[in-house]
Amino acid sequence: MTLPEPSRRDTRLDTYVDAYAERTHGLTVSAVRALFAVANRPEVVSLAGGMPNIADLPREALGETVAKLIRDQGIQAMQYGSGQGELFMREKITEVMAEESIHAHPDDVVVSCGSQQALDLVTRVFCDPGDIVLAEAPSYVGALGTFAAYQTEVVHVAMDDDGIIPAALAHAVVTLRAAGRKVKFLYTIPNFQNPTGVTQSLERRRELVDVARQHDLLIVEDNPYGLLTLDDAPLPAIRSLDAENVVYLGSFSKTFAPGFRVGWALAPHAVREKLVLAQEAATLAPPVFSQFVISAYLDQFDWRGQIDTYRRMYRERREAMFTGLTENMPEGTTWTHPRGGFFVWVTLPEGLDSQAMLPRAVSARVAYVPGPAFYADGLGSRNMRVSFCFPTPERIIEGTRRLGEVIEGELDMIRTFGITATPETRPYLDQATGPAPDIS
Amino acid sequence: MTLPEPSRRDTRLDTYVDAYAERTHGLTVSAVRALFAVANRPEVVSLAGGMPNIADLPREALGETVAKLIRDQGIQAMQYGSGQGELFMREKITEVMAEESIHAHPDDVVVSCGSQQALDLVTRVFCDPGDIVLAEAPSYVGALGTFAAYQTEVVHVAMDDDGIIPAALAHAVVTLRAAGRKVKFLYTIPNFQNPTGVTQSLERRRELVDVARQHDLLIVEDNPYGLLTLDDAPLPAIRSLDAENVVYLGSFSKTFAPGFRVGWALAPHAVREKLVLAQEAATLAPPVFSQFVISAYLDQFDWRGQIDTYRRMYRERREAMFTGLTENMPEGTTWTHPRGGFFVWVTLPEGLDSQAMLPRAVSARVAYVPGPAFYADGLGSRNMRVSFCFPTPERIIEGTRRLGEVIEGELDMIRTFGITATPETRPYLDQATGPAPDIS
Repeated sequence: MTLPEPSRRDTRLDTYVDAYAERTHGLTVSAVRALFAVANRPEVVSLAGGMPNIADLPREALGETVAKLIRDQGIQAMQYGSGQGELFMREKITEVMAEESIHAHPDDVVVSCGSQQALDLVTRVFCDPGDIVLAEAPSYVGALGTFAAYQTEVVHVAMDDDGIIPAALAHAVVTLRAAGRKVKFLYTIPNFQNPTGVTQSLERRRELVDVARQHDLLIVEDNPYGLLTLDDAPLPAIRSLDAENVVYLGSFSKTFAPGFRVGWALAPHAVREKLVLAQEAATLAPPVFSQFVISAYLDQFDWRGQIDTYRRMYRERREAMFTGLTENMPEGTTWTHPRGGFFVWVTLPEGLDSQAMLPRAVSARVAYVPGPAFYADGLGSRNMRVSFCFPTPERIIEGTRRLGEVIEGELDMIRTFGITATPETRPYLDQATGPAPDIS
Repeated sequence: MTLPEPSRRDTRLDTYVDAYAERTHGLTVSAVRALFAVANRPEVVSLAGGMPNIADLPREALGETVAKLIRDQGIQAMQYGSGQGELFMREKITEVMAEESIHAHPDDVVVSCGSQQALDLVTRVFCDPGDIVLAEAPSYVGALGTFAAYQTEVVHVAMDDDGIIPAALAHAVVTLRAAGRKVKFLYTIPNFQNPTGVTQSLERRRELVDVARQHDLLIVEDNPYGLLTLDDAPLPAIRSLDAENVVYLGSFSKTFAPGFRVGWALAPHAVREKLVLAQEAATLAPPVFSQFVISAYLDQFDWRGQIDTYRRMYRERREAMFTGLTENMPEGTTWTHPRGGFFVWVTLPEGLDSQAMLPRAVSARVAYVPGPAFYADGLGSRNMRVSFCFPTPERIIEGTRRLGEVIEGELDMIRTFGITATPETRPYLDQATGPAPDIS
């Protein structure tokens, strides 16, 4: 079969440009996307991705379980399902959440097409254009994308080694409301935050809940990594401290596998009703077959043991990352020391620009995500996110070695010429303050 | 484990009501939803649902295929995937679309979480609050829900036995634009339309394309049922007549199975780019594992033969529906004669109200969807949609027998008391004009 050409009349001029919704004009292709296509070549060590390593899943046994599922329950598993998600799935989800001290009723759970879609639905239900979403500085790039798609404005709140700072949060809420802005919720990742790896202490969580209550602020708690704790027992979720002011987002993407696209929201009753209606309008029902597969997996496999297996594997990779950074980073480079999750946040020596440096890093066959991707306001140019989830320990070490050479090269250039190779990015330099610029 | 109570503080008073987005206030639970919970009881013959009958799928062989898939390709199939959808899936989708004369490039396809989500993304990309979407009168209730979720206004366009009427479409576009309204697209279901069962003739499709070109109007062609033609060969899709002004929506829900939640949009290049960005913000990626399963099914099974099996089964059920209606409907009742798909559209004798009658029908153990569900403007009270997809032929016949008795009972009441049992719905009666009220 000869394929026709893809339609191309619009490659230079988009004739639909006047027909799009306002929100669509904010949807643009990331500048680093083309680079990442190159970064996916096998010779490049990618410390950029957030893909879990699922090689340790028991595929043979899982295949048999799914074959039996199709044979015995296929008529239900391949049929349309509930817009809220299947009841047995929601029951299992409450069991998983109990690992982080959440006691919830399955009625209050809404299943989604990955937790990304749960965040999309929450934003859809709460945010009009121009509304404010508060988020850590920096925060998850995918969440920033969702907030932009709903034309909200993200205001970053400073964090320290214990996570987002309650006083800064209170200050932001008060200041913004005094200026007449509608602050709809705080979006926060309490465990092994993406991108910084920082975890909120229990004391900090209590303080956050107090601030939220005091200021009548909804908290959206995004917790994909919580069970991938590598040094300690899981901390109680923020939702376990306050059932009324928190919408909790969970995911099977990191504790099991992302390809099934099953996440969820746990929400107060009235919000849950709205989320279900929004879900029905968006998809009719979240992936049904996936819910049957994951429920069967949780029923018939030692899923807690599998998480322990994941933990051992990620712990080894994290140690490789720490060792590699210690051995290879030039003086003046610092980084966070996450106790779980996938990511380390690196702060480059003064004068360097992570975005300008990326093409040279990719030429040197190593990739990372530049800091500005995680800020809605252009900060973060001295930062980068490196991940230890997907490459092997050996590749991680090799990646940090290559990265160290690239940074050395940049520093050499500064020493020689007094500037970085990309002077047009200099305006950012003075603003880059690592993971914790205040909003004020 | 003792389950905690679901959160209930909001059952009477929603304390979040002031925090929701504008669009959320339009999300309300359908009045007939509670009734449908009852209608799902086994003793009720439900002619209401649109669930395909997938009992004939080769589950044993399918289970073996999926087990092998997990064993051999599980690491890719259970991993994150492309926001646009996997390339092999998009290639297969172009093969499926070729059955309806569409020649497309895989680059122009965007995979979605069911075609409902494709419609959601198209609406998201094109529609601001207050924009107009044109749709057949009546139209698919799920699409009306999506349009409402984006605060668009639906204007219905009259149809006849050949589908939507081109002159009425042109008239609507001109009139609305003259009034300063933004008409974003025509949403149309060309084959075995939901809910009427009406199919656009080929000549009509050509006329529609001409009107769309002349008035610079985008057509969104929703085609879930096209290959379930029961009397004839499939007609060429509207998209096959115009690659530049049509966004085509397809689905595997009816030709294979809905539980995998895989649908797609085929769009002009520039629009496709926007849809991919919107998809990434919404879900990161559509169901990945599902795409592997469906691709394996299309590769390794006689999917065209399976569609023939479905056709034979649905043909028998449609004949049962025609027989049952002919034998059991009181005089003055009329219905459409679809040549495929799932649905028949019934017009009740003058004076009857399908919505008011529904509780009595459910008491008599038969259910249908009242006509007003398919109109954004409250029309359709003399209509109902009955489906022949899911119940067996015997149950369909029994369902029409019960329905006939209910209608007879209503007519008796009118003869005796001169009014229906629910006089407050009478204002609708004079407006109900069957499937084709004009917008003017």
